[in-house]
Amino acid sequence: MTDAQRPHEQEAVLTAARRAREAAVDLATRSRAAKDAALNAMAAALEVDSALIMAANANDIDRARAMHTSEAIIDRLKLDDKRIGAMADGLRQVAGLVDPVGEVVRGYTLPNGLELRQVRVPFGVVGIIYEARPNVTADAAGLCVKSGNAVLLRGSSSARESNAAIVETLRRALSDTGLPPDAVQLVPGDGHEAVKHLMRARGLVDVLIPRGGASLIKSVVEESTVPVIETGVGNCHVYVDSSADLDQAIAILLNAKAQRPSVCNAAETFLVHQAVANEFVPKALTALKDAGVTVHGDERIRSYSKDVVRATDDDWDTEYLSLDIAAAVVDSLDDAVRHIRKHGSGHTDAILTRSQAAARRFVAAVDSASVVVNASTRFTDGGEFGFGAEIGISTQKLHARGPMGLPELTSTKYIVIGEGHVRP
Amino acid sequence: MTDAQRPHEQEAVLTAARRAREAAVDLATRSRAAKDAALNAMAAALEVDSALIMAANANDIDRARAMHTSEAIIDRLKLDDKRIGAMADGLRQVAGLVDPVGEVVRGYTLPNGLELRQVRVPFGVVGIIYEARPNVTADAAGLCVKSGNAVLLRGSSSARESNAAIVETLRRALSDTGLPPDAVQLVPGDGHEAVKHLMRARGLVDVLIPRGGASLIKSVVEESTVPVIETGVGNCHVYVDSSADLDQAIAILLNAKAQRPSVCNAAETFLVHQAVANEFVPKALTALKDAGVTVHGDERIRSYSKDVVRATDDDWDTEYLSLDIAAAVVDSLDDAVRHIRKHGSGHTDAILTRSQAAARRFVAAVDSASVVVNASTRFTDGGEFGFGAEIGISTQKLHARGPMGLPELTSTKYIVIGEGHVRP
Repeated sequence: MTDAQRPHEQEAVLTAARRAREAAVDLATRSRAAKDAALNAMAAALEVDSALIMAANANDIDRARAMHTSEAIIDRLKLDDKRIGAMADGLRQVAGLVDPVGEVVRGYTLPNGLELRQVRVPFGVVGIIYEARPNVTADAAGLCVKSGNAVLLRGSSSARESNAAIVETLRRALSDTGLPPDAVQLVPGDGHEAVKHLMRARGLVDVLIPRGGASLIKSVVEESTVPVIETGVGNCHVYVDSSADLDQAIAILLNAKAQRPSVCNAAETFLVHQAVANEFVPKALTALKDAGVTVHGDERIRSYSKDVVRATDDDWDTEYLSLDIAAAVVDSLDDAVRHIRKHGSGHTDAILTRSQAAARRFVAAVDSASVVVNASTRFTDGGEFGFGAEIGISTQKLHARGPMGLPELTSTKYIVIGEGHVRP
Repeated sequence: MTDAQRPHEQEAVLTAARRAREAAVDLATRSRAAKDAALNAMAAALEVDSALIMAANANDIDRARAMHTSEAIIDRLKLDDKRIGAMADGLRQVAGLVDPVGEVVRGYTLPNGLELRQVRVPFGVVGIIYEARPNVTADAAGLCVKSGNAVLLRGSSSARESNAAIVETLRRALSDTGLPPDAVQLVPGDGHEAVKHLMRARGLVDVLIPRGGASLIKSVVEESTVPVIETGVGNCHVYVDSSADLDQAIAILLNAKAQRPSVCNAAETFLVHQAVANEFVPKALTALKDAGVTVHGDERIRSYSKDVVRATDDDWDTEYLSLDIAAAVVDSLDDAVRHIRKHGSGHTDAILTRSQAAARRFVAAVDSASVVVNASTRFTDGGEFGFGAEIGISTQKLHARGPMGLPELTSTKYIVIGEGHVRP
């Protein structure tokens, strides 16, 4: 792209944002019934248009193959009838959830008789920046429409045609049910410049949610003047305390690491109290080896098996997202807490213990979005938490922390009702 | 300052932030009793040290006078026994408030038996950037300590010695009661560079709250990589509907504009429905004139009096903070809403009406932190809302909106308790 084209691209992004803003004003006061009807129509339209969407997807896949993209990524990109059906089912599920808009968060009558209520309202315009899987396009659109927000979607360029086809279908369904189609838009333009314009559209875009790898999230956080909710990077720990049930600990560790290693709530490090290391570590290493997991251990872990790779300083900070795990022996619960504070990403950390005192100490001292006692880290998930849906998992402390469902896609406002009240 | 000094200054800021972080870890698990004892000790220490603090303050005032600072600003800067007593009383009041830390925001048992709780936890380290009045130093420190946060305070350079004396006193009281004194620190260094380092200390500082004028807030929002909560700019509107009680409307308009014009919840514009303009505007203009208010009106307002100044385009967007008000006649409630959407700052906007339908429409359509019916805009305030204290008024939608009390100075975490649960 030449410099001469850039002002045009900026204008295109800002125009889309302004149209989203207009649509958001309309959407904000629509009833739950109107929004649910639109969501169900969006679901039906995806099924009706599935051949069109798959044709667009085939073009994306051809382009990816021509660029020698790995089969793993092509698998994430690929849409078939089953995956499109799952997208439609997801939208119907969101239609079944309670509408967060209008919920009274708190309310009371003040001593002077003023009635005060704090109620949930939509943000307005939400920007979602995401990678790879085109199903996020429909998921994010559904959650935003349900919560009364317009959404500006910026997917991966590798899924460009798939995303365009999905959005076209969703917009038609919105229009057919009388909702503003501009509530769901792709960010126009390609390349990083378009994202930059989105990130600088403060006042037009209320919040940006980047979903993807650490480098994507870091760049959004650094460059954006629009408020950002950070999501997803998970360097999760499992700490096996001196009083842990060791058989249970093996089962939990295996589940946390190997049940689905590519996701953010999978464990990336385990720490073992030295008092149980002799009994636990050999069993754990055997079980992990049988599950195909490579262990990157400190010297004390390595003393138990020659299969353990020597851990470097980097291992403690790495989100492997693969069948690898870092491991260390610690002298105390407090040492485990210190390790997690230093190296964790504030996503999910678990203690396995039979001691009430140890559990309480760990829960109080570990400052993560989700702190787990005697269960797998894999439970940190909007679906598992009973939220019905999830737009991402926040690893920051402002606004939302942990899995974000529909209420996390809203702000609030105060409504004050008087009878001629003035301040004395 | 030379360039050679800057790395040193950055290191000083980062060192302070790291010490705050350590203090925050300690403070996060302290009991309410320990924090309240510290707050009461901080109050007593301010009273004991009042002569020292006033001596430091006298130096600030001498410097301000030498720089020909206006008497209005010198008055805001000035401390006397009464004002120091008020600071101490403020701390005692905060000690009396409920501790937000540990509050269970929601909690239930999942179908698989996992127990899930979402509980309030401190942010960690809060940065406050503020102007002028040195009492903010004690107020902000008290609210942060109570909510379990360490605070980095960056006041106005004009109050440098006063702030240093207050912080020294507060730190001694923390230390005397066994809490970490580094929980309350001034940001070291002078000038804008120090603020810049604070704004880039992402990972060490959890949230920044700028309190002050529009330009301060804008620069923090643009430059900060630390998450920011915007506060305070208030271009508040009073809309007099066709069905308003006009005598009540005069009283509310006068209160909203003139009771204390220098604050963010004072009204800056009034809009009148054309159906009542003939009856309302002449009375309103007389009442405002008697209160010393200059009206900047559109042509329809100006047709009622030659005293009305012609409003320029800028007037609609101006936060006067003085005895000035913009005024326009509108053709409908929807025109009033459109005007407020276009020119408002999302702080506080009021409708005066006897119509239930008009009130409901205005409340739903006006997207501001506080929407008021038949009362003065001046009620948007943490104290008036019954929060017991206020760290500022958020005009953004992320995390907190409207007056922010103690709960708004916290994040949450999820605690998940299982009995060996693994994900199937």
